[in-house]
Amino acid sequence: MSSQTPPTPPTTPTTPPAAPRIPHMSPEEFRAWGKQAVDFIADYMQRLDSLPVLSGVKPGDIAAALPEHPPADPGVSSHDFFADLERIILPGLTHWQSPNFFAYFPCNSSAPGIIGELLSAGLNVNGMLWATSPAATELETRMLDWMAEMLDLPAHFRSTSATGGGCIQGTASESTLVALLAARHRARLASPTAHLTLYTSTQAHSSIIKAAMIAGLATNPDDRTHIRLIGTDANHAMRPDLLRTAITEDLHAGRFPFYTCATVGTTSSTAIDPIPEIADILHAAAPGCWLHIDAAFAGAACICPEHRWMLRGVEHADSVMFNPHKWLLTNFDCNCFWTRDRSAVTAALSITPEYLRNQATQTGQVIDYRDWQIPLGRRFRALKLWLVIRHYGVEGLRAYIREHIRLAALFEQWVREDERFELAAPRTCSLVCFRLRGQGPGADEANRKLLERINASGRAYLSHTTLRGPDGNDRFVLRMAIGASATQERHTRAAWELIRSLALH
Amino acid sequence: MSSQTPPTPPTTPTTPPAAPRIPHMSPEEFRAWGKQAVDFIADYMQRLDSLPVLSGVKPGDIAAALPEHPPADPGVSSHDFFADLERIILPGLTHWQSPNFFAYFPCNSSAPGIIGELLSAGLNVNGMLWATSPAATELETRMLDWMAEMLDLPAHFRSTSATGGGCIQGTASESTLVALLAARHRARLASPTAHLTLYTSTQAHSSIIKAAMIAGLATNPDDRTHIRLIGTDANHAMRPDLLRTAITEDLHAGRFPFYTCATVGTTSSTAIDPIPEIADILHAAAPGCWLHIDAAFAGAACICPEHRWMLRGVEHADSVMFNPHKWLLTNFDCNCFWTRDRSAVTAALSITPEYLRNQATQTGQVIDYRDWQIPLGRRFRALKLWLVIRHYGVEGLRAYIREHIRLAALFEQWVREDERFELAAPRTCSLVCFRLRGQGPGADEANRKLLERINASGRAYLSHTTLRGPDGNDRFVLRMAIGASATQERHTRAAWELIRSLALH
Repeated sequence: MSSQTPPTPPTTPTTPPAAPRIPHMSPEEFRAWGKQAVDFIADYMQRLDSLPVLSGVKPGDIAAALPEHPPADPGVSSHDFFADLERIILPGLTHWQSPNFFAYFPCNSSAPGIIGELLSAGLNVNGMLWATSPAATELETRMLDWMAEMLDLPAHFRSTSATGGGCIQGTASESTLVALLAARHRARLASPTAHLTLYTSTQAHSSIIKAAMIAGLATNPDDRTHIRLIGTDANHAMRPDLLRTAITEDLHAGRFPFYTCATVGTTSSTAIDPIPEIADILHAAAPGCWLHIDAAFAGAACICPEHRWMLRGVEHADSVMFNPHKWLLTNFDCNCFWTRDRSAVTAALSITPEYLRNQATQTGQVIDYRDWQIPLGRRFRALKLWLVIRHYGVEGLRAYIREHIRLAALFEQWVREDERFELAAPRTCSLVCFRLRGQGPGADEANRKLLERINASGRAYLSHTTLRGPDGNDRFVLRMAIGASATQERHTRAAWELIRSLALH
Repeated sequence: MSSQTPPTPPTTPTTPPAAPRIPHMSPEEFRAWGKQAVDFIADYMQRLDSLPVLSGVKPGDIAAALPEHPPADPGVSSHDFFADLERIILPGLTHWQSPNFFAYFPCNSSAPGIIGELLSAGLNVNGMLWATSPAATELETRMLDWMAEMLDLPAHFRSTSATGGGCIQGTASESTLVALLAARHRARLASPTAHLTLYTSTQAHSSIIKAAMIAGLATNPDDRTHIRLIGTDANHAMRPDLLRTAITEDLHAGRFPFYTCATVGTTSSTAIDPIPEIADILHAAAPGCWLHIDAAFAGAACICPEHRWMLRGVEHADSVMFNPHKWLLTNFDCNCFWTRDRSAVTAALSITPEYLRNQATQTGQVIDYRDWQIPLGRRFRALKLWLVIRHYGVEGLRAYIREHIRLAALFEQWVREDERFELAAPRTCSLVCFRLRGQGPGADEANRKLLERINASGRAYLSHTTLRGPDGNDRFVLRMAIGASATQERHTRAAWELIRSLALH
C-alpha cells in the first residue's frame, strides 16, 4: 500500500561519514572582513557625489560579467570579492543614496540605520512570536509608541490603548494589504455575503489595486467590480463630493463599502486627500467602512508640528502608516503601521498550528507580531529605528525634514522665476512637480526629451509622472523629489543649473 | 467648492528658514561605530555558547527598561548604546544563533551572510525595477540559476528558459502566496467563475491556509469551502490515494482543482510528500492544477546528490521554493522561488502606473522583480547569497549540510539506544522527532514537563509538535532540529546528556 512506502533514499549509508571540514570564517576573519566592509561603505558615502547617479549599463551587461556556474571550492578572498563588487556591481547600480538622486521618492539610509541593520543581521533572531525573542517584540512596540508620539497620533493607536497598537511592516504595500484584509474581515462579520466595494482616488498608489488583486477582489488592474477610483480636484486630491456619490450609489445597489484608502502625499504629486471630509462622509453613510491612511512618504514630515496638518483627521482612521525607509533615515525596509482595531487585523491573519503554541501566547499577555503581517518570520527591524531615533533625536529628525523642505521651496522658487518652466502641482512637502511650458504632444515630447538628457548626464536623476492640466488633459511632468540623506543646497542648485542648461537645447 | 480647497497649511512661513544643523554621523564616526558593531558581533559569536539560549524574561520586562518617550536631543554615544544593547536587549533575546538552539527550524546566519547584509544596507538600493538598479536584478537572476544548478532543477526553472525563472522572496509564506495567486490567475483564464479548490496535506505548513485567507479563499482557518486537507500515511506524508479521491469528488461536483501544495520536509517531522505520485494524479485528473513544492527547510539538503531524492518529481511542478535563511547560512530573509510559468506570476501581480514606466521595461528585455512579489520595493538580497556561495563554495555548503545530518543521525542513534525514549517519526534530514515512551495524557504530560525543564535550563532549546501515533491518536512530541551554524558534535551530545538527565526526574 502506497501509504506505507518509507521515505528513505534509494541508498542509505550505513554509518554516518566522518565530520568534514566546513569552511566557516573564524571570528578573526569576520572582524577583518567586517571592517573592510565598513570602510568600503564609508568610502562609498564619500565618493557618492562623483558617481553617475543612474546606471548606464544595458540589459545583460552585468549578467555577462558573472560566472555561469557557482564555484565548487570555498574561499573567495576579500580582495577578490571587493574588487568584483567595485568592477561588476557598482557600475550596475542606480545610486539611491547619491545626493543627486531626485527620482521616485527617496529610499533613505543613514549611518545609524546601517549600524542598526548590521546588528540585526549579527543577532539574526526571528521575532515571529513574542516567545521567540521578547526584546524584538517589546522594543518594536515601544518604537511604534515613540513614533506615534512624534506624529501626535491619538491614544487609540498606541499599545497602551485597549484595542490599538502598531508594528513594523516591510513596505507600504504590505500595510495597505493588511488593512484591507482587516477591513474585509470586519465587513464579513457584519454581512457575510455582501458585495464589497473599496474606494480610493485616481491618484492613489498602485499598491491599493495590487492589494485588491491579491485579496481576490480584482482579477486584473482594470477590474472595477469591487474598486471605485474617485476623481480628484485641481490639486489632485480626492473629491469628497464624488466619494459621497459613489458610496451612495453602491449603498442603493445593496453593496457594502468596506474599505477607503485616503492618501497623505500621493506618489505623483504629494497631494493630500481631505481626511476630515472623507471621515465625515463615511461616518454618515457607511460607518462600517474601514478608513486607512497611506502616508507612506509625507508621514515623515508630520513629525514637525508645522507640517502635522497633513494628518488632520487621522483620529477618525482605522489604520495609518508611513515609511521611515523613505524619508526618515532608516534603511529599507521599515514601514510603521498603526491600527485602532488590532483584533480585526489578527482575526484576519492568525492561525496557530501546534508547533507555534507556547505559554506566553496562551496567557494573552503578549503580542505575537506574526499575526499582524503577511509572512510568518520577521527580522529585528526595531533595532535600526531605535538607533536612528536615539542618534538623531526628535529635534535632529525634524531639522532633517525641514532642510529638505527648505530646499524644495528654494527649487520651487527657481522654477517660478524661470519663464520657460511652470509648476504642475502644489508643493506640499519636498517634491516639486514642474515642466517646460506648452500644451499638447509637442510639449510632452519636449519634457520627455529633457528628462532623458538630465538622466543620461549621470549628474542628476529625476523621474516623471502624468498629471491632469488646467485644460483637463494629462501632461507629462517632471518630478524633483528632494530627500536623499546626503542632498544639500549645492546639489539642489547644481541640479537646477543642469536642468536649465539642458532645456536650452 | 470643496474640490478647490488648496492643500496649504494653516500658516505658511513666507521665507524658508535658514539651514538647521542636522546631526549626521561623519564618515569617520561611522567607521568607528561600524567597527565597534563588527567587534560586538564577533564577541557575540564567541560567547553565544555560554548565553542562556531561551530568554527568561517575563512579559513587560523589556518594555519596563525602555524610556517611555523618544529623546528630544541627538547624540547617543556608542558607549551608551552598546551598553543598553547588552543590558536591555540581549537578556530578552532567544539566541537563534546559539549552538544550543534546536527549536523550530534553524534561522541560519554566517559571517559572509552578515557581511553581505551589511553591504546591502550600505548601498541601500531599491531593486523594484531592473532600471532602478540593474545589477541587483541581474545578480539575483544569476544566483537563482546557480542555486537551481546546485539543486539540479530542470532547465524550465532557469532564467535561460523561455517561460521560467526564479527570484528571491522574503519568506516561504510569501512564495506560497505568490504561487497560489499565479495558480488562481491561470485557473480563472480557463474558467472565470469556477468554484476553486486547493489541496495540501494535514501536515502542511500553516502558511498555506494563511495564503488562502489572504487571497479570499477562506474566511477563517477552519473554513473548508475551498481547502482540502489530505490525510497522511504512517510517515506523515500526503496519501496520494486520498488526494485522488478528493480531486475526483470535487471534479464530479463541478469544482476546479487549481492549486496543490506538496511539502518536501514538513514542519512537524520533515515528512516528504510523494511528488511523482501527486504529479501523476494531477496530470491524469486535473491537468490545469498548479503544483507548488514547499521545500522551505529540506530543500537546502538537496544540494547534496545523496539527498536530492527528496525533490524527485520536481520536474512536474509549476513552482518550487526553499529558504537559504533556514539552513544554508544566509541571513533572514532569503527565500528562493522558481516557477516554470513566470507569465502567470506576473499576470497575477503586475500593475504599471505612469510613475513606474521606463524604457527598459517597455522593451521587454529585462525582468522587473516587483511583478514577482507582494511588495513593490525590494532589498538587494542577492548580495548576501553571492558572498555565501563564493565563500563556502558548493562543496563547503555540502559539507555543512552533511555535518548536521551526521549529527542528527548520531542523535537518532542515541535515542534508539535509550529504552526510555522512542522515535516519533522517520528522520529524513536533520530533525529528530522523539519522546518518552508511553500512551495517553500521562505520557504527553511527562513529555511536556521534560520539554519545559530542558528549555528552562537555558542550556538547550527544543520545540514540540503533535504527531499521530500508531494507535491513531495525536501525541506530544519533542523536536530536536539540528541546524544552527555553530552547532557541533559536542553541543549535540551535551543536549542529549541534558535531556537524559532531566528525564530522570
